Amino acid sequence: MTATAIAPHRAVVEHLVRQIVYERLGKPLPSSASAPNPLVVNVSARHCHLTPEAVEALFGKGRTLTPFKWLYQEGQFAAQETVTLIGPRSRVISNLRILGPCRKLNQVELAYTDAIALGFEVPLRLSGNIKDTPGCMLMGPSGFFEMEQGVIRALRHAHMHPDDAGFYGVRNGDEMKLKIGGPCAILLDRMLCRVDPTFKLEVHIDTDEGNACNLQPNTFCELTR
Amino acid sequence: MTATAIAPHRAVVEHLVRQIVYERLGKPLPSSASAPNPLVVNVSARHCHLTPEAVEALFGKGRTLTPFKWLYQEGQFAAQETVTLIGPRSRVISNLRILGPCRKLNQVELAYTDAIALGFEVPLRLSGNIKDTPGCMLMGPSGFFEMEQGVIRALRHAHMHPDDAGFYGVRNGDEMKLKIGGPCAILLDRMLCRVDPTFKLEVHIDTDEGNACNLQPNTFCELTR
Repeated sequence: MTATAIAPHRAVVEHLVRQIVYERLGKPLPSSASAPNPLVVNVSARHCHLTPEAVEALFGKGRTLTPFKWLYQEGQFAAQETVTLIGPRSRVISNLRILGPCRKLNQVELAYTDAIALGFEVPLRLSGNIKDTPGCMLMGPSGFFEMEQGVIRALRHAHMHPDDAGFYGVRNGDEMKLKIGGPCAILLDRMLCRVDPTFKLEVHIDTDEGNACNLQPNTFCELTR
Repeated sequence: MTATAIAPHRAVVEHLVRQIVYERLGKPLPSSASAPNPLVVNVSARHCHLTPEAVEALFGKGRTLTPFKWLYQEGQFAAQETVTLIGPRSRVISNLRILGPCRKLNQVELAYTDAIALGFEVPLRLSGNIKDTPGCMLMGPSGFFEMEQGVIRALRHAHMHPDDAGFYGVRNGDEMKLKIGGPCAILLDRMLCRVDPTFKLEVHIDTDEGNACNLQPNTFCELTR
């Protein structure tokens, strides 16, 4: 099985079309269309990041992650491999997707709805900041792996290239707001900006946030300070 | 078993304390404290409303709902009785709470996260407006009851007494915004106002919305036009 190539996100296509149409019409670009990059907003369902050691414990000696679907950020993928998460009250979530490539720490990212269903009290944390967070047990086809810590709800955040940060007038660590339209429109406040030359402009929200506003590929989104 | 009397909501206590403190200090009340009633925001977990006929089909001839916990709106209660909901892909939700008293129609209210887990495509509807919505099967200790229609995601709404509508300057059917503070603050747009002399001021949001912002009893909330 080969990994699915990612189909262009609707926001990417719209951004290109808008730029071409305005150019043909000889009209000045509206602010959103003059952005260096399209605003892609994706919902991250619950998932985990694992170390190579955890992958071997769960899937067997010498085993590595196999890309199943490429994600919008360069080199990132949803793996074919999934695990079963066993929570503190012996409740489980099956088919928890692993995102690759492997990292230097093990981390499970849940929405609060998931955490409540499992019986976890999980803190809101920036990805990677897992000190003093609860742990859990993971089960794979070849064994168990106990995470001492690392179960979090990820802080909502925007990946940004320095070009995007320049366009929006923000710096790494600043907070922005994301306006999402539609019949159950919301505005997400305190959206953390993470700026890095390897990043493509993409907002990650979780399933609680995505379902609160019923985010669809054609839903209007706007990032503001 | 007797039904639990509802403990005063923190917003109710705070509103009273604020009014007394400002009076003692001889200072003019800030806008929020001068409101005729406290702003209570409650999360409605998934639940159903049933007709007396459905209750009898599910729990047995002559059976009625037994109050388990009184809700903030006068006379409304969570019943002791729960049902099992069987969705279109034979997936189930157990212990779906019934809210009483009985109504003239059967309606199941789910968050989108629930609906996705069950495999439903549910429309966003004002409670009671269930024409052309999907149905489901309910299972109780005494039998099954098939709902031909009535599975919805309820439109976010604010119950208001005419005094509250006057204070906020809105009419029945208008839309307001609800600002919710905290580390994952949001603003919920398109909050429908439902004005009735029997209503107490209370905003109902669902678990997706409540978990998106991690609404707690002490979270700052503000209703604006």
